Amino acid sequence: MYKPATIKDIALALQLSPSTVSRALRDGYEISEETKKIVVAYAKQVNYKSNPIALSLKNKRSYSIGIVVPELANSFFSQAIAGVESIAYEKGYHTIITQTHDSAERELINVNHLAQRSVDGLLISMSAQTSDYSFLKNLHDDGLPIVFFDRIIDDIDTFKVTSDNFSGAYNATESLIKTGRKKIALLSNAPQLSITNTRLAGYMKALADYHIPFRTELIRNCSKGGNDYHEVENAVKELLAMPDKPDAIFVSSDRISISCIRALKNLNFNPKEIAVAGFSNSDVVDLLQPSLSYVRQKAFEMGQIAVEMLLKLIESKYPITEFETKVLNTELHLIK
Amino acid sequence: MYKPATIKDIALALQLSPSTVSRALRDGYEISEETKKIVVAYAKQVNYKSNPIALSLKNKRSYSIGIVVPELANSFFSQAIAGVESIAYEKGYHTIITQTHDSAERELINVNHLAQRSVDGLLISMSAQTSDYSFLKNLHDDGLPIVFFDRIIDDIDTFKVTSDNFSGAYNATESLIKTGRKKIALLSNAPQLSITNTRLAGYMKALADYHIPFRTELIRNCSKGGNDYHEVENAVKELLAMPDKPDAIFVSSDRISISCIRALKNLNFNPKEIAVAGFSNSDVVDLLQPSLSYVRQKAFEMGQIAVEMLLKLIESKYPITEFETKVLNTELHLIK
Repeated sequence: MYKPATIKDIALALQLSPSTVSRALRDGYEISEETKKIVVAYAKQVNYKSNPIALSLKNKRSYSIGIVVPELANSFFSQAIAGVESIAYEKGYHTIITQTHDSAERELINVNHLAQRSVDGLLISMSAQTSDYSFLKNLHDDGLPIVFFDRIIDDIDTFKVTSDNFSGAYNATESLIKTGRKKIALLSNAPQLSITNTRLAGYMKALADYHIPFRTELIRNCSKGGNDYHEVENAVKELLAMPDKPDAIFVSSDRISISCIRALKNLNFNPKEIAVAGFSNSDVVDLLQPSLSYVRQKAFEMGQIAVEMLLKLIESKYPITEFETKVLNTELHLIK
Repeated sequence: MYKPATIKDIALALQLSPSTVSRALRDGYEISEETKKIVVAYAKQVNYKSNPIALSLKNKRSYSIGIVVPELANSFFSQAIAGVESIAYEKGYHTIITQTHDSAERELINVNHLAQRSVDGLLISMSAQTSDYSFLKNLHDDGLPIVFFDRIIDDIDTFKVTSDNFSGAYNATESLIKTGRKKIALLSNAPQLSITNTRLAGYMKALADYHIPFRTELIRNCSKGGNDYHEVENAVKELLAMPDKPDAIFVSSDRISISCIRALKNLNFNPKEIAVAGFSNSDVVDLLQPSLSYVRQKAFEMGQIAVEMLLKLIESKYPITEFETKVLNTELHLIK
């Protein structure tokens, strides 16, 4: 079992009292220079390190930030994390990452574990399956700084940063309409996610502006957030089997975009029959075949803004009561 | 600033001594049932949680495992992490993830931070830029359980798990030879990585077995491990500009495989002129255009084996002195 050298170990080895050792290591004025030299040399030899967890219990600051995301395999989140790290490292904060796999249960466990292990604050993008936010509300009420990014919630009053999901969805849907498509299906994530509803609203507005009737039978929610490929393939199969089947699909969720492309390939569809536009921050989206138009979010920048907000909360000497929700615009990339 | 409720807070509020509160919460026999009820009810009301960090200082067990990987954006690592989590959660351990971006400096900082924050053990896949392993050696000598996976090192005697990189490289190179290619270039990762050399050896053996001369001018090391796209594009450009240019490329590193495909697309090469085979655990490798044959590692399984090895080290009551290096076979997927 790993046991780092302690002050007691050093004291025992050098036949000194623990308090003398502790004072010598802190360069206390009451200890002779000779004793200090001996203690410091021995501490170095046994690779003694002051215990930052014990320190953090005293100082109440650990210089660690917890990051909770649904899925590391999703490029959007790895890019956002890289953005967080780019600022955090510079400011001397460590980042500790956990993923929830879109499970409400794991999210609860991960968040509580991070909070109890003295992170100074939390950056979180909500799991698709979570509908009870009381565990976060309790921690927030107890004073734990929390900033939401991407998948934000209304119930907690704090800093938040997300994409302009409405315009992203509007622009993608409009691009499909402009290529002559009129029967545009929507594949989306779990309905309790903020992003799902905002993107649905953007899709509906684009249809309305171009006088295309909204048909509920063309809407499919994939509540497992793209983690279950078969859920997506079944939805695509159902859509393509409709008598008045769609001529385009707008995918309002990052991972589901890739699963939709895979489903269309596996189902041997004819690319000319169905056009696809979807949210995607995949690093290889431009190399995929079948190809799709895609809405790209500023994930790296979102991570940077989120951590700047969090550090403001952590380092503020006075309670902050005025909060802001930043909204970043998205970029639409059309198929060439 | 976040201050969770403490035993002292509860004691003060209920006009009891801290030790009575502590005993009541632990259901101690010396405390009356009535007092226990009051204490438990109040503790629940103020959302009191026993502090696992303080506990871990006493018990020397935190039920946390640190995972250190080069790059979360690399699917191989997110799959391996999912494998680790699948076992760790079941056994009641938390996983804390950090990434190094293939930087030796960040690796040192991340590892020390995890060790000092009392993880029970460490799973690590080495950064491409690290050549001095003394910081790990020191922690290991101090008794911190460490298991290496994928990018393992020789210098530390412990459990390790990696892929059969020799055979993976041999089979991929052989598949290119069998389609009639004879001038096969090698794009690889940093030369100090274990996987780089083992895969080089597999490539060389396949050439030798088929009586194809080994040409050093066809070897290109991309020491930034695919994190710098331009490094890869330049290497590909140089290879294609050679008078006696290659008719195939074997890419011995996961991220460099994707960058190589991108470079070939950006350089407008003719897919018939250059065949590509490479290591890749990308979730979308089969959807990429240009397409490639690929060697897939059992990443999820590797994560599972690594964490089982680590838990053996953590939970053993006696020092373990006999170690094993497990080698998992790879799967070759040919272009259809």
